[in-house]
Amino acid sequence: MEGLQVIPVRGIPEVGEGADLSAVLLTAMEKQGLRLIDGDVVVIKQKVVSKAEGRVVRLEGVTPGKRAKALASRQGKDPRLAELILRESVRVVREGHGVVITETRQGFVCANSGIDRSNVEEGYAALLPVNADASARKIRRSLEAHARKRIAVVVTDTFGRPWRKGQTDVALGCSGILPLVSYRGMKDEFGYELRVTEPAVVDEIASASELVSGKLERIPVTIVRGARYRRGEAGAKSIVMERERDLFR
Amino acid sequence: MEGLQVIPVRGIPEVGEGADLSAVLLTAMEKQGLRLIDGDVVVIKQKVVSKAEGRVVRLEGVTPGKRAKALASRQGKDPRLAELILRESVRVVREGHGVVITETRQGFVCANSGIDRSNVEEGYAALLPVNADASARKIRRSLEAHARKRIAVVVTDTFGRPWRKGQTDVALGCSGILPLVSYRGMKDEFGYELRVTEPAVVDEIASASELVSGKLERIPVTIVRGARYRRGEAGAKSIVMERERDLFR
Repeated sequence: MEGLQVIPVRGIPEVGEGADLSAVLLTAMEKQGLRLIDGDVVVIKQKVVSKAEGRVVRLEGVTPGKRAKALASRQGKDPRLAELILRESVRVVREGHGVVITETRQGFVCANSGIDRSNVEEGYAALLPVNADASARKIRRSLEAHARKRIAVVVTDTFGRPWRKGQTDVALGCSGILPLVSYRGMKDEFGYELRVTEPAVVDEIASASELVSGKLERIPVTIVRGARYRRGEAGAKSIVMERERDLFR
Repeated sequence: MEGLQVIPVRGIPEVGEGADLSAVLLTAMEKQGLRLIDGDVVVIKQKVVSKAEGRVVRLEGVTPGKRAKALASRQGKDPRLAELILRESVRVVREGHGVVITETRQGFVCANSGIDRSNVEEGYAALLPVNADASARKIRRSLEAHARKRIAVVVTDTFGRPWRKGQTDVALGCSGILPLVSYRGMKDEFGYELRVTEPAVVDEIASASELVSGKLERIPVTIVRGARYRRGEAGAKSIVMERERDLFR
């Protein structure tokens, strides 16, 4: 088929700490009669990676400090969640209207340090993977070894953005794919040099995947087939804009 | 096929002012043996819409004012381009490092009021459509009348974003599709109520389309098939965050 396909991987069970995600994935794909081919991008939601990596925290065991209590009171949040938000961040970028935007230890700017309580057991919260690029790399290597194909892996999360309502899925981690496609110095058909054009192909792949995975069914993984990208190991962390170039920090 | 497909529409010729885009599109699709089906989303790049609507300006005919000259000098831009950027915006949100971020008359926050010089003749610049929702509506109605299918149309542009390098395609205008899918009040499988989850499905569709259309080949249109969305007429303008809720204006 010409163009791009996003194929849902069905039948992935609830995973716990220590789960071998690549094995879980290959089993589910096999049941579905789905085989990886060279160039496929396996797109995995952060939540399932966090669960496999034991990044799920019981709120009862969290003791909020003074800063967390103050933040929680200002923004109407659970003080234990506020404590986790502060622990997982290097600073609060903005707060207001019940929203707390932080910069995570990995450099991502997002709501609540990426912590959320959906799709986890009641009384628990899921933190982001410590290093989603490393998570993606580990899964890619294992999938490639088993399937004997060259593929890429993208770990995604759902982020809001300034100026526009709603959220889109973006890449938190990736392996086997360069996050940006650079057109710098290339010329369009009128001879005009494209100077700043660098599509964030990992984020576009994350968004394409979300159209299929949604939020309610258990489809934490999709296969994006037919995307053009360059193979490489820069990681999604390389997409974080340098502070000195960023007009919005 | 299960899942989502993004199909390129090939063979679309260069269009000029007054071109009937739906006729151009249907001709190209027919040559390709491609037929619209119910639920298809026709995704069209802003540039081709701007050209058809005569929103291409010859820079030689633009006389920069005092503000434009000062802005151009501060940010190293062509003063005539700076003049157009100011004319097409209601205010400058940020400037620095040669970048000018403005709020357009439609409320979109983007670089250079969305004006750019790629893929237009030398000495010219393309402005955004005056009302991309109206552009989308007109094309949708005409396509639906000819194809006798219920479809949606999204007009896209390439926007940068704070905190992350690179750009993604987003929706400037849409018709036949509600921009956001609301999960508010719905519960996940653990019984947790999703309170703020509203995927910006039009923006995700725009991004998925960019993976196929790219920047260099002449593929200004794709068909996104198999996306789940709600039919409606809110328009992409409804996605602009209210100023009083926006933490970044």
